[in-house]
Amino acid sequence: MAGLVPAVHVFYADDPKSWMPGTRPGMTLERVMSTAISPLAPIHVPDMPAIAGVRLATAAAGIRYAGRTDVLLALFEPGATAAGVFTRSKCPSAPVEWCRAHMKTGKTRALVVNSGNANAFTGKNGRNACKLTAQITARAIGCKPGDVFLASTGVIGEPLKAQAFDGVMEGLVARAQPGDFLGAARAIMTTDTFPKVATATAKIGKAKVTINGIAKGAGMIAPDMATMLSFIFTDAAISSAALQALLKDGVADTFNAVTIDGDTSTSDTLMMFATGKAAGIQRIARAADPRLKDFKKALRAVLADLSEQVARDGEGARKLVEIVVEGAVSKSSARRIAMSIANSPLVKTAIAGEDANWGRVVMAVGKAGEPADRDRLSIWFGGIRVAHKGTRDPGYDEATVSVAMKKPEISLRVALGMGKGRDRVLTCDLTKEYVAINGDYRS
Amino acid sequence: MAGLVPAVHVFYADDPKSWMPGTRPGMTLERVMSTAISPLAPIHVPDMPAIAGVRLATAAAGIRYAGRTDVLLALFEPGATAAGVFTRSKCPSAPVEWCRAHMKTGKTRALVVNSGNANAFTGKNGRNACKLTAQITARAIGCKPGDVFLASTGVIGEPLKAQAFDGVMEGLVARAQPGDFLGAARAIMTTDTFPKVATATAKIGKAKVTINGIAKGAGMIAPDMATMLSFIFTDAAISSAALQALLKDGVADTFNAVTIDGDTSTSDTLMMFATGKAAGIQRIARAADPRLKDFKKALRAVLADLSEQVARDGEGARKLVEIVVEGAVSKSSARRIAMSIANSPLVKTAIAGEDANWGRVVMAVGKAGEPADRDRLSIWFGGIRVAHKGTRDPGYDEATVSVAMKKPEISLRVALGMGKGRDRVLTCDLTKEYVAINGDYRS
Repeated sequence: MAGLVPAVHVFYADDPKSWMPGTRPGMTLERVMSTAISPLAPIHVPDMPAIAGVRLATAAAGIRYAGRTDVLLALFEPGATAAGVFTRSKCPSAPVEWCRAHMKTGKTRALVVNSGNANAFTGKNGRNACKLTAQITARAIGCKPGDVFLASTGVIGEPLKAQAFDGVMEGLVARAQPGDFLGAARAIMTTDTFPKVATATAKIGKAKVTINGIAKGAGMIAPDMATMLSFIFTDAAISSAALQALLKDGVADTFNAVTIDGDTSTSDTLMMFATGKAAGIQRIARAADPRLKDFKKALRAVLADLSEQVARDGEGARKLVEIVVEGAVSKSSARRIAMSIANSPLVKTAIAGEDANWGRVVMAVGKAGEPADRDRLSIWFGGIRVAHKGTRDPGYDEATVSVAMKKPEISLRVALGMGKGRDRVLTCDLTKEYVAINGDYRS
Repeated sequence: MAGLVPAVHVFYADDPKSWMPGTRPGMTLERVMSTAISPLAPIHVPDMPAIAGVRLATAAAGIRYAGRTDVLLALFEPGATAAGVFTRSKCPSAPVEWCRAHMKTGKTRALVVNSGNANAFTGKNGRNACKLTAQITARAIGCKPGDVFLASTGVIGEPLKAQAFDGVMEGLVARAQPGDFLGAARAIMTTDTFPKVATATAKIGKAKVTINGIAKGAGMIAPDMATMLSFIFTDAAISSAALQALLKDGVADTFNAVTIDGDTSTSDTLMMFATGKAAGIQRIARAADPRLKDFKKALRAVLADLSEQVARDGEGARKLVEIVVEGAVSKSSARRIAMSIANSPLVKTAIAGEDANWGRVVMAVGKAGEPADRDRLSIWFGGIRVAHKGTRDPGYDEATVSVAMKKPEISLRVALGMGKGRDRVLTCDLTKEYVAINGDYRS
């Protein structure tokens, strides 16, 4: 198959030629292969089990470029439920509006994802393209158009030629097979340097259920607007209302606590599908059902894993940065301060430069507009306290801190001393490569 | 004198050797001299007249580096009034707190500005350093410490050794002379690539008054936090209360409508001093006094000129970007949308790449959280409409737009079609040089 990101070595599970000597899915990947893959990529790619009731297929529909895999179809057996959270943008894409509108039934038979065209800012044409895509899909599988969910990533403002799906949909339906979630993750990549998958199992009563997730990161496909897309699949049997509550709860400290550059896509989409096909499964109607305890934990692990991978594949990222704010007046105040730090270009460039520049952290705390008192503030980089109670830490040792800052993963902790509010967000550094990816392109 | 920014050619009014062949203050500066000066630097440096009642002197006090001009003293004759606006940071520097506390009397005899150390996040030491600096200054000129205003820019978190002022203050007072505002602007530079001065005259009744301003931009001095500092001087006679109102009103659409990277310094300071020494001047008590009409206009021109120069000297800037948002539900809504666009790394990198990427503008409008309707949105780059009513402009011509995007000054206009709110902000592009300036340093 053609690489989605030319000049980037991608590890294709279905293409042994792409494997590094001695590696295969489920094994530890060495990072010697190519510097074009984010140095922060997870070194372990999990084996992705099949999910009962889910079949997957990909195709090259020529949405934008010829010969490039650009469509993912996920088919669900009748009875599957769906939930979704979407971008907060006031200018959402047509597929986001389509999904929101059809989420009400909570039922689904299929998900169609395309890359190459975001179908955003496309007006009435965009709405028609969604309708046509759903009709083509519904016809091929024998369901209602409203049972088909859609997501698109790629260029903004270009009409999406949904007729292109007509030529490939029958084939996709015919070819759909359980299990190739790694291939599905690859099919939705844009400038991602590695496919993002995660899996976990949980017990619901005596039944064992599986949760699989795939994601693509917030990246750009030159010169296009891109998008964070993620899809979670499970064979648990959960009502759509409960699924929605679980998803909303699960993203708060995972996907909603990750930022690359503070920019919000028109198309961000995270959907979850439950087939109810696990052996011996009991149907759960309410999110508060105590039988979901283990499932909630597993779902959170999958969401945390995927969202961390998104940060690890931030454009041009060379450092994964965890920002912990504690002692704020509330959790939401801690979140706002952590986001102010995480989105500060000055903090991010300092970390790229491996400098524990806590002065810029003070600046970012100060600009958040949340209660803070300079004279109670303490700051740690990599576990080393560099500032304490309003002044430089008396024990500050430049050499020790420098060693910590050279690591690829940096923890930045801020204690405000105002209350008990605590929160954590993930981000990455801001490098010249970020500017190059987002500035040095030509359409 | 030693250059403040080594490797950068700075135009020193008092050092003819620094002038380019055939240039002098008041003449047009050619930009052939050095690429290290921002290509967006104004090509004309105005002659800065003296202001009756203001004397200036600079010195090298060795605050951080030896042999570098790092102190500016402005002396005011008795009777001068003062006003100031300061950073909104919740963690302001000690000098900001000092100025706020002593602004109540509205009287002043001196302003002391140092570079090299911001005296921020320095706790009790910082407060003591302010007190000592004011005491040393007050003793040298014979006034109360509370009549001395202070501003500092430079490294955060390092104790400021205010004793250093003891050795130079008597000399500064003795040497203070009217007129060298260009030298004063240079003395407060950090990573600025050019000194920022502006001047205007106005009539108050029959008296002619002068307004001079100097500024330093939001830049970094490796590895330090920097600051926007600006000081306005006039020989008008205006009560401190009226001066405060004029200043507050004047910054709303000038300094408060400029953003480089969305980061807020702990030390941002804009102060204004009125000596009342213009010939035949009448004292004005209220900002609403109709005699101030011309003065307000001139003050706004000086503030607009200086704040535009700050944007022109944005770190790594290669494009000056004007963002106009119209048709918003209110002016403040237009401001928030304009700031969302101006601070978007994706918009800024696209402009650095000379791409009219209106998809990213849609994204930035959408994330502002203000009322907007995709289907009413129109976007212009350089006067050329690229998107109209929810879709790509039918007349979009890539080649024409490309020519516009190559210019050093880019106007980006967004029409929302929601109401009559309009606002304008200035910013610059985000280049690899920005990341280099803020990341590639070693302390």
